Amino acid sequence: MENKWNFQGNGELKLVPAPRIRGVLSMIMQNLNKDDQRTTIPLGIGDPSAFPCFRTSISAEDAIVESVRSGKFNCYSPSIGILPARRAIADYLSNDLPYKLSPDDVYVTSGCTHAIEMVLTAISRSSPVANILLPRPGFTFYDTRAAYSNLEVRRYDLLPEKGWEVDLEALEALADEYTVAMVIINPGNPCGSVYTSQHLKKIAETARKLGILVIADEVYNHLTFGSTPFVPMGTFGSIVPVLTLGSISKRWIVPGWRLGWIAICDPNAILQNSGIIKSITGCLEVSSDAPTFIQAAIPQIIEHTKEDFFLKIVEMLRGAAVICFDKLNEIPCITCPSKPEGSMFVMAKLNLSLLDEISDDVEFSLKLAKEESVIVLPGMAVGLKNWLRITFACDHSSLEDGLGRIKGFCERHAKKK
Amino acid sequence: MENKWNFQGNGELKLVPAPRIRGVLSMIMQNLNKDDQRTTIPLGIGDPSAFPCFRTSISAEDAIVESVRSGKFNCYSPSIGILPARRAIADYLSNDLPYKLSPDDVYVTSGCTHAIEMVLTAISRSSPVANILLPRPGFTFYDTRAAYSNLEVRRYDLLPEKGWEVDLEALEALADEYTVAMVIINPGNPCGSVYTSQHLKKIAETARKLGILVIADEVYNHLTFGSTPFVPMGTFGSIVPVLTLGSISKRWIVPGWRLGWIAICDPNAILQNSGIIKSITGCLEVSSDAPTFIQAAIPQIIEHTKEDFFLKIVEMLRGAAVICFDKLNEIPCITCPSKPEGSMFVMAKLNLSLLDEISDDVEFSLKLAKEESVIVLPGMAVGLKNWLRITFACDHSSLEDGLGRIKGFCERHAKKK
Repeated sequence: MENKWNFQGNGELKLVPAPRIRGVLSMIMQNLNKDDQRTTIPLGIGDPSAFPCFRTSISAEDAIVESVRSGKFNCYSPSIGILPARRAIADYLSNDLPYKLSPDDVYVTSGCTHAIEMVLTAISRSSPVANILLPRPGFTFYDTRAAYSNLEVRRYDLLPEKGWEVDLEALEALADEYTVAMVIINPGNPCGSVYTSQHLKKIAETARKLGILVIADEVYNHLTFGSTPFVPMGTFGSIVPVLTLGSISKRWIVPGWRLGWIAICDPNAILQNSGIIKSITGCLEVSSDAPTFIQAAIPQIIEHTKEDFFLKIVEMLRGAAVICFDKLNEIPCITCPSKPEGSMFVMAKLNLSLLDEISDDVEFSLKLAKEESVIVLPGMAVGLKNWLRITFACDHSSLEDGLGRIKGFCERHAKKK
Repeated sequence: MENKWNFQGNGELKLVPAPRIRGVLSMIMQNLNKDDQRTTIPLGIGDPSAFPCFRTSISAEDAIVESVRSGKFNCYSPSIGILPARRAIADYLSNDLPYKLSPDDVYVTSGCTHAIEMVLTAISRSSPVANILLPRPGFTFYDTRAAYSNLEVRRYDLLPEKGWEVDLEALEALADEYTVAMVIINPGNPCGSVYTSQHLKKIAETARKLGILVIADEVYNHLTFGSTPFVPMGTFGSIVPVLTLGSISKRWIVPGWRLGWIAICDPNAILQNSGIIKSITGCLEVSSDAPTFIQAAIPQIIEHTKEDFFLKIVEMLRGAAVICFDKLNEIPCITCPSKPEGSMFVMAKLNLSLLDEISDDVEFSLKLAKEESVIVLPGMAVGLKNWLRITFACDHSSLEDGLGRIKGFCERHAKKK
């Protein structure tokens, strides 16, 4: 028999997803100039854990160490997570809600990306003709996972001139009888926006009118430093059922710990007998769990981390956001429509007519990496061509250095009049 | 618009998988009698970590603690795993191979179940008409994941009278032009078998003849205590390309740490330009990674764990296997065809004609749980009706207690002559 080691179809994956952030960044990084003696400034990804000033809290480390040293959590975990972890997360989220979540409303996942994977897979399997509404610009892992599950995606716009609020009229026009959910990311990745309570309520009312669920990605919860406080979407769970996704990755600066959750914010128990819950728990059953000893550390991580730690992180981000916004707006070919008030990112628009021999955002990012050893993410990777997503989650001196290099790069490439 | 919160199709999952071990065990455990004052004896699952005598090595705990305390591994991991972990796993596996694996041959996963998920998903996506050959009895997570990916499964038999070897003639007859891989589990779950080098070579030659890959699940590698030493399937990688799946879960008794791997054992580089590798790395790209700090601990876990620890674990399993085999064979309605030589399990056949009012393996297990507070896994959950899978991975006194209760149960239910 002929061997099949080469796989029929030459390994053409059915998967032809939108370009993923990791993939695009790795392409940009391959363009770095190894002869440049300067340190590379990473403004491409929301992971400041390498900077000593962003080291996680000692209490979080202590909690992991105690959990491992106890020898009690080397065992398998139930697929929905261990009860103490689910209880601690339920209590943590309930602090900001007008009602109380029960541990049964919470499922533990391997980070927020795993939560996204579980929810989108569950939707695609519950309803084979479903479509979902995703924000543009957005976090393209949603697009990738939706493509992977053959789930149709429709993109609604965020409005830069209105603080990146959802274009609700356009969103309504996109939805049809097969639309089952919309995703919002608040605080916003990639926009640095924080939605007001009023806007969130309008989103809830629109979703209710359309009869769709809201998937609220709140992985950046509490990382806000502007005039708008963080309000969880679950606040409006009595208007519309909300699936809240989160993790300890961002607030505790531990993205590599892979500990996240799905919380069912549905005080009227509308979803109780619906297919979606059964579908999510079914998906969790056939997926790998978060390590048991990390789950077991969660109550202590949440309870023992001091307010000082959170304040320090938010203060650093606040200062960094100001530096970033001000310095970028000094550059003629770059415009930031609004000062970031949350998360770790800002969207900056390129005016290519002011630049020579740079045709788009990808070329800008590739040349910037090569000439200045600064990494930024081309907007195409988040759905907005000829913009840049820049993270300010790094120490202030690296950030100023990086922004200075971007300025120098733009001056050097400015069109001569 | 009508709301879609109930999800069309009432949440009927497309997923209709074979019953999973976790699900069946949870059904059995719901039948426990809460009024029984005796301790429940868990002979259903291969996780002895709750018994103090099976505590993991102090070196493994130390490695995790040092990794967390360093503060260097809170960051995201690359999707294939961090280089030091891949190198350490490659070196560890190479110790038992006639050639050397490179770090590029190894991908880190969140435990062995994640490795299974990645490989089966990759196969299903690389070749839409593929089928794979799975052992019966086997580890039904393979069936579940294959069903999940719409990958056709064909079951070949293991032969109890031949030490649970593969029925190679029947396997050949099952394969067709769309068969792309076969799975073997060695040391064997659920059979406790360990294949000889000769048998493994025959498997390799058969797979070569059929032109299919071998997926070698070696999660129980080195947990052998009979006359047959463990030989990795990769030894025959020059006859047929082998994808070896493994983890630290079993040998280090840390199933909850979720650290596993896929190793490409293919010294002739036949798979180098094939679709399967691209497909596996593509799947890893859109899946959650193992926590970075656990990956970072791997070199030290492997290097610093003393031989004493492994010897102690294997000695305990050896003793437990003898107790289990001898005690079970004292029970008239139970037959174990062969003494387990590896892994943590034995398959025991029920002779239902000797029992009153017990119609099958499930009823046996349910009544045993209720009357004796002993949990065993009905054979249907591993593909063999009216057998039981019994684990001996517990401390010897609990094991003797549990087996004594099974004997009492069988005597009480014995058919009167």
